[in-house]
Amino acid sequence: MQIVRSIPQMRAVNYPVAAKVGFVPTMGYLHEGHLSLVDASVKSSDITVVSIFVNPAQFGPSEDLGSYPRDFERDLALLEESNADYVFFPSAEEMYPPDYKTWVQVEDISRILCGISRPEHFKGVSTVVLKLLNIVRPQSMYMGEKDFQQLTVLQRMAQDLNLAVKIIGCPIVREEDGLAKSSRNLYLQGIQREQATCLYKALMNSQKMAAAGEQAADKIIAAAQKILLDSQAKVDYIKIVDARDLSETDKVDEYSRMLIAAWVGKPRLIDNMSLKA
Amino acid sequence: MQIVRSIPQMRAVNYPVAAKVGFVPTMGYLHEGHLSLVDASVKSSDITVVSIFVNPAQFGPSEDLGSYPRDFERDLALLEESNADYVFFPSAEEMYPPDYKTWVQVEDISRILCGISRPEHFKGVSTVVLKLLNIVRPQSMYMGEKDFQQLTVLQRMAQDLNLAVKIIGCPIVREEDGLAKSSRNLYLQGIQREQATCLYKALMNSQKMAAAGEQAADKIIAAAQKILLDSQAKVDYIKIVDARDLSETDKVDEYSRMLIAAWVGKPRLIDNMSLKA
Repeated sequence: MQIVRSIPQMRAVNYPVAAKVGFVPTMGYLHEGHLSLVDASVKSSDITVVSIFVNPAQFGPSEDLGSYPRDFERDLALLEESNADYVFFPSAEEMYPPDYKTWVQVEDISRILCGISRPEHFKGVSTVVLKLLNIVRPQSMYMGEKDFQQLTVLQRMAQDLNLAVKIIGCPIVREEDGLAKSSRNLYLQGIQREQATCLYKALMNSQKMAAAGEQAADKIIAAAQKILLDSQAKVDYIKIVDARDLSETDKVDEYSRMLIAAWVGKPRLIDNMSLKA
Repeated sequence: MQIVRSIPQMRAVNYPVAAKVGFVPTMGYLHEGHLSLVDASVKSSDITVVSIFVNPAQFGPSEDLGSYPRDFERDLALLEESNADYVFFPSAEEMYPPDYKTWVQVEDISRILCGISRPEHFKGVSTVVLKLLNIVRPQSMYMGEKDFQQLTVLQRMAQDLNLAVKIIGCPIVREEDGLAKSSRNLYLQGIQREQATCLYKALMNSQKMAAAGEQAADKIIAAAQKILLDSQAKVDYIKIVDARDLSETDKVDEYSRMLIAAWVGKPRLIDNMSLKA
């Protein structure tokens, strides 16, 4: 496994002719969720590149950029075990030099859901991913479905900008009690860890209601809301959307997906699930 | 020469391995300015691709999108003579399908100069050029210096987004009396054609003043302004900028360039020149 720390060095990597290159962008502090993406890439690609970059452009001014967990040595050991071929680890100064000026915005779907409480977030995500794709030049990129809006925004960016890359969404990896794996779970203190399972419980309950024939989105959302409030979570949003374009759904159908964002203590957690069992 | 009318067809073009691909993006209605870019590409590349696309996204609501001159058959004949290899001629519907959402913005330098009277123009230019680059996949792109701000914005976009393409600015091609070649010169009626040379005259006078030792930008600009007003031109702006970043200059030096935009009758004309003789 080769560690690449500069943009010119990564661009200069000569992949074997006709090699299929798979790419997993991460912010490091890797957990089983990330490693499942690396596995998916390793299985389907000849070369797997993983980037580790805590992207300042996707954090709001009052968010946790400074305290976002980092452990590069541990990440390297995990990636070595996972058979990644390259780890790209650029500096923020090189990715965004002082006179940096260019931003990519996917309109509409960047402004809803998480975009309401995080207005610049998806602009930062779209821009950094486009930069990384241009530097790494993969045929496929692997992303978790946990940030379902992020996946949708990036797939839309790739389609609109005529990128050659295929963006592949991979299933959410969960703890045994259902909590979606996240680097931010680290912030959960004491009883909050147990309370945080309320997102999963609300999603499972919604899926069960839909399977039992309930079609009214507002009824399913009301039940999910109760589960979250009973666990002291502060709800940001609970929405049922059409998974294809994130538009809100009144009547549940096969494309319906519930998306939740809520604060449990300090961390803001997100989770989602298809309502088709 | 091959004519390619769809995005998938252009993306599927298999260039010979290690071929150097040069690209000239145009809006058609080709004149010697465009053809000089094709020549530059043909000289330095193995394959030359020319796109013809009147990009709706770079026209303002009150601008001349509908009446912009078009003559595809004539363009084809000129490109055939110029030894272009591919002409890419996509439709607006395929480039911007109804639910198109993704835009690239180069901040600051898109907002000044022409960006003041054309606030969305460079967003449209940046976006379409990024799309075209992703579709055509050239190593080099050739652009005229006539729209010097456009050239600067796109070079900055390429740098910021870590694009592999090299963007090469080529000298302005002029009529015998100095008027910069432009598809919009067609709109000049009667005496306006003669009056339109005032941009060139003002630039030449500015260069002469600088060569004679005048360093005060405001004095050079005042003299240029007089020349434009004497020819009934309606000035949009006359600026002396640092050619490297388009910042305004008080004291002329080797990097100084004068940029002019002015209406002569209906058409809004632009021109520019280095003040270093």
